[in-house]
Amino acid sequence: MSDAALRGLFEPGTVAVIGVSEGEDNLGRQISANLGRFGFDGIIYEVGPRGGQIFGRRIYRAVSDIPDHIDLAVILTPAATVPDILEECGRKGVRHAVIETAGFAEHGADGEALSRRLQAVAAEFGIRFVGPNCIGIINRHTGLCTPFVGLDPSVRGGGISLISQSGGVGISILNVLVSEGLGLAKLVSVGNKLDLDENDLLEFLIDDPETEIICMYLEGISDGRRLVELSRRSTKPILVHKSNIGHAAERIASSHTGALSSDDAVVDAALHQAGIARFRDTETLVHYLKALPMPPLVGNRLAVLSRSGGHAVIAADECELTGFELAELPRAFLDEVEQRLRARVIRLTNPMDLGDLFDLDAYGEIAARTLAMDGVDGMVFLHTYVAERETPASLALFERLHALSRECNKPVAIHVATEFEELGRARRSLSGPIFSEPSDAVRALALLRDFGQQRVFPANRPDGPADVATVRAVFERCRREGRDPLLQEAMAVAAAYGIPFAPARIAQDEAAAVAAARDLGYPVAMKVIGAELSHKSDFGGVQLNLRSEAGLRRAWSDMMSAVARRAPSARIEGAMLQPMILGGRELIVGARRDDNFGHVVLVGAGGIFVEILRDVAMRLAPFDAETARDMIGSLRIHPVLEGRRGQAPADQDALVATILALVRLVDDVPEIAEIDLNPIRVMDAGQGCVALDARIRLGD
Amino acid sequence: MSDAALRGLFEPGTVAVIGVSEGEDNLGRQISANLGRFGFDGIIYEVGPRGGQIFGRRIYRAVSDIPDHIDLAVILTPAATVPDILEECGRKGVRHAVIETAGFAEHGADGEALSRRLQAVAAEFGIRFVGPNCIGIINRHTGLCTPFVGLDPSVRGGGISLISQSGGVGISILNVLVSEGLGLAKLVSVGNKLDLDENDLLEFLIDDPETEIICMYLEGISDGRRLVELSRRSTKPILVHKSNIGHAAERIASSHTGALSSDDAVVDAALHQAGIARFRDTETLVHYLKALPMPPLVGNRLAVLSRSGGHAVIAADECELTGFELAELPRAFLDEVEQRLRARVIRLTNPMDLGDLFDLDAYGEIAARTLAMDGVDGMVFLHTYVAERETPASLALFERLHALSRECNKPVAIHVATEFEELGRARRSLSGPIFSEPSDAVRALALLRDFGQQRVFPANRPDGPADVATVRAVFERCRREGRDPLLQEAMAVAAAYGIPFAPARIAQDEAAAVAAARDLGYPVAMKVIGAELSHKSDFGGVQLNLRSEAGLRRAWSDMMSAVARRAPSARIEGAMLQPMILGGRELIVGARRDDNFGHVVLVGAGGIFVEILRDVAMRLAPFDAETARDMIGSLRIHPVLEGRRGQAPADQDALVATILALVRLVDDVPEIAEIDLNPIRVMDAGQGCVALDARIRLGD
Repeated sequence: MSDAALRGLFEPGTVAVIGVSEGEDNLGRQISANLGRFGFDGIIYEVGPRGGQIFGRRIYRAVSDIPDHIDLAVILTPAATVPDILEECGRKGVRHAVIETAGFAEHGADGEALSRRLQAVAAEFGIRFVGPNCIGIINRHTGLCTPFVGLDPSVRGGGISLISQSGGVGISILNVLVSEGLGLAKLVSVGNKLDLDENDLLEFLIDDPETEIICMYLEGISDGRRLVELSRRSTKPILVHKSNIGHAAERIASSHTGALSSDDAVVDAALHQAGIARFRDTETLVHYLKALPMPPLVGNRLAVLSRSGGHAVIAADECELTGFELAELPRAFLDEVEQRLRARVIRLTNPMDLGDLFDLDAYGEIAARTLAMDGVDGMVFLHTYVAERETPASLALFERLHALSRECNKPVAIHVATEFEELGRARRSLSGPIFSEPSDAVRALALLRDFGQQRVFPANRPDGPADVATVRAVFERCRREGRDPLLQEAMAVAAAYGIPFAPARIAQDEAAAVAAARDLGYPVAMKVIGAELSHKSDFGGVQLNLRSEAGLRRAWSDMMSAVARRAPSARIEGAMLQPMILGGRELIVGARRDDNFGHVVLVGAGGIFVEILRDVAMRLAPFDAETARDMIGSLRIHPVLEGRRGQAPADQDALVATILALVRLVDDVPEIAEIDLNPIRVMDAGQGCVALDARIRLGD
Repeated sequence: MSDAALRGLFEPGTVAVIGVSEGEDNLGRQISANLGRFGFDGIIYEVGPRGGQIFGRRIYRAVSDIPDHIDLAVILTPAATVPDILEECGRKGVRHAVIETAGFAEHGADGEALSRRLQAVAAEFGIRFVGPNCIGIINRHTGLCTPFVGLDPSVRGGGISLISQSGGVGISILNVLVSEGLGLAKLVSVGNKLDLDENDLLEFLIDDPETEIICMYLEGISDGRRLVELSRRSTKPILVHKSNIGHAAERIASSHTGALSSDDAVVDAALHQAGIARFRDTETLVHYLKALPMPPLVGNRLAVLSRSGGHAVIAADECELTGFELAELPRAFLDEVEQRLRARVIRLTNPMDLGDLFDLDAYGEIAARTLAMDGVDGMVFLHTYVAERETPASLALFERLHALSRECNKPVAIHVATEFEELGRARRSLSGPIFSEPSDAVRALALLRDFGQQRVFPANRPDGPADVATVRAVFERCRREGRDPLLQEAMAVAAAYGIPFAPARIAQDEAAAVAAARDLGYPVAMKVIGAELSHKSDFGGVQLNLRSEAGLRRAWSDMMSAVARRAPSARIEGAMLQPMILGGRELIVGARRDDNFGHVVLVGAGGIFVEILRDVAMRLAPFDAETARDMIGSLRIHPVLEGRRGQAPADQDALVATILALVRLVDDVPEIAEIDLNPIRVMDAGQGCVALDARIRLGD
């Protein structure tokens, strides 16, 4: 979509509000009222079948009666009338519309038909529209404000733009911007997304010169891959609240990989990979909105200056919890500051308790000298004051701190403790943000730091073995026989892409099993094989650590009778024998195809802890070795792989290679719905890794 | 302390404010101004050496000049003058004082001397005092308000009392009460706690009829055991913000148990055990303060009703994240409600989207019928409205919901989305709380639920083996030799209390080791023994899974040369040989003596994950089997112990017995600074558990 195509939506010279009457309860009049209150810088026309007048203007009975060109139509009439009205708009040359009417997709078959007609009319006349079933759009800089609920025009103009799939949530965030003194650029409530969806609007806002930060509230994602690709090329921060996580529980997982890669976990991974910050509550959103416009936090050392000792302690706690270091300040400097403290009762350190110093100018000077130090990467300044008596000096101090931050190009987060009403006044009058909790100031800096460190990795297919012919042959056989691959087939598929497996022998009967074990050498592991037996351990189909022929024979009959009892209808194809492989660290590597985002590949802690710890890292495929190393590094169990207390480090290169093998496999053979390598034993560095089991579920 | 002794502090008939002058900057006059603004219901006298007049009253030059009895002296004069002034007060019969002056403990040797004189004077005259170095006390119900910073009297009277170790934090919380419309009973800033400490004040507030909830902000805990004991007998909720967690990192851990039981982790465990809710930020405090006065949440099924679909989705997400179930509502009821919706575009479920219903009376009725249902344990009601036009109906709805909650004896958390200023007005006018975020409403109910489920366990010594004579003999020998117990001694100590160990043989040389291994049977484990070698694995002093005599001999020389190289000065006493014991689940059980709270006993996930997962449960000793089971049940790895996917459950009874053995041991022999049983292998149910290693560090 061209930029110009959407610019007309947000910068119309003439707007027709369709569905207006003189009635007090009429919602259309609220739209006109909002345009007036927000000081819309264009011309407004109202349309309604009953005519009349409103806000000193005539209400036209039809769009065609308006004696002017119309750039934007805002429609709020009964659903059944909307397609005809849009057609009338089209004939009049209108090219942009906001359709706020509800009752389309939600209305069943009738709504479906109406929706299709709307799309047809729009296509015929080249109309791009937002909605239906939305509360409209706002462009704070032109005064365009089309919601049908009366809005508070006290929201500042600024660089924050908002795309919301819920009108109510959009308005809530707007209210929060007002209360925090943050500035709005544009707001769009996308509704049913019959024409324009969140990605179209995101693309526009990425290039919109008035937009500096983009926030999205989404209950569903229309096209996950496009969202990721758009975000990757954005130089503006993008923040997303993706709600509606509850359905995760509904999908029944058919493998460990499935259980670990719920829909919501995939969303998490995709947003991370796209460089998008995900937030789940307004508090965190506000922290982002305040922190992201600050200078970058380069380094991790904070200075904490406070008028209240208690607030200093709370801020220092939060520094510890969020992984900040308290910068070491030169003793000579601290001694000098101490000389200025009234009662000189406090031995200074960092956090610096300035409680005994009543001179607010001196605060600014101490802050300036502290922030300028090489060893200080950012600052938290905690101030408490009594309203009125100290208001002018305090506001001047805050503005000085904001200026300092710009000069030193280091972030300063200001916490203010004062009376409730005063805090609101200060927020609305200051040029920069303030925080009302010590911990909030620190958390905001932590978000700034972590957002700055998040890297967007390229989506490259990695090189390596890829015997796709072998894989296709196996899958064709499976399709013919209407089943998923058997254990040995799944292993062959993975091996075709370079994944190393433990030696294995198939045995159809007990005698063959005994012979196989003798060849492999005791102790051995034995697993039942069968198309319906992929969850073999659930059926008693896994026997580990068999140390002798006698033990193996006992295990064979135990296993076969357990399987026959627990899965009476399953056909048993035999058993696989493998030498027991111990040592190394147990991990899981897998992949799954997500309906929205495509294939994801994951690595995680394996063994009995796999679903208890849920210690897993996941990324959209394809990706390269750097991403795979980043995934491994993000695991909680990573220190175990690094080696500790004199233990050898694990062969992380081999693990990377295994992850990338799956990336290639799902890239070449997208019909793989799920593949599980569980467990994989990663040996000491240089000694590789070995997969002990594989499961594959085929999709369409 | 008798109740009456402190009642005089909070309910004086006459107050002398000492340190007042006519000067604009004088802090004492702020105290008098606060007493005036808060409408103190007694008589106020001011005292200052320069005399003069203030607020229409004479400033007396000395306490002795006041022609009246004085119940409470509030002192804010230079530190050096305070002891004499307190003595003068004592001679005049004053029995309670608030000393706000700073510069005592912080002043080094001079301050120490002043502090001791203060205590001596107080003891001589039987004066109880708060401070020094505090901002004073407030009793909202009598108008007593002694802080030296001007305060906003708009804080409501109510049941919340506050003990704060920081004046600044106390005032901050007060500001939050104002902004949230919550009601204050009493506030005390405890300062240096030279006489009255937080426990004295807690004891008073537990019995204070005007106090319903007690909040404490503490940077240090004076007497942890007393805090726990007082809290255990409180019928009022106690909420504690214990800050100053950073020092945890300073203590160098000498064992796994040490590393897992940081000072702050002990505080966590102790507060949990005392039935105290710990909070770390004001947001959570406010959730508690709003939720705890609600009816109890009996059960876990919520109904979510919302005017905005988006808010409903966000609330449902938060229900999922906090472990709530969405109550199943009868279809017939939902159908009936659907009939009332204007456009009937929404298919109702729970969360119930009432967005299409414009009749706020109907909201109340639907809420009433929903809350009354047996299958509904509590409700979240999410309302969004336009200020002014819908204010009266909305406020009426909120009051109706609060009344419903009382009638049904089920909690209702109300979320309100409206303009910022309107939200503030609503908060201050309503009789019950409202929340400004959907997630906050759900989180508050989760806190209510979890606080209600927290049980205070009795502190009983458990029965069981306790051969204290054996232990004393070992420890006496260690003391004589100025060392901690050797490996086999530590094992003997633990065994004396009934803890089962793997068989073990000591060998002084290689030949003895070979003989021992032959007796025990291969494979074996071998560990070096020496007083300075308790961290034996750090020195290469542990050799596992030795499968043959050749392997053992190689391991012996490897181990001895590694130890000699890495710990050249350490004396090697020999080696311990044990059969390799595999199977079961690896855990750690340990105990440590905390300086403030006494002994804690812990259980956690063992093996290589022990310090990575930090999956540990800890309690103050002594405690009984029920507590031990509760600890085990709270571990993240608990499902592994319960048995899953056809695996046998672990012998949790044996693990409980091991935990209780340590409880008895540290109860009998308090000089144990630290004991570590790591690992312990817990076998299948009925097969017990076995400790493989033990370390003990002796304290004083």
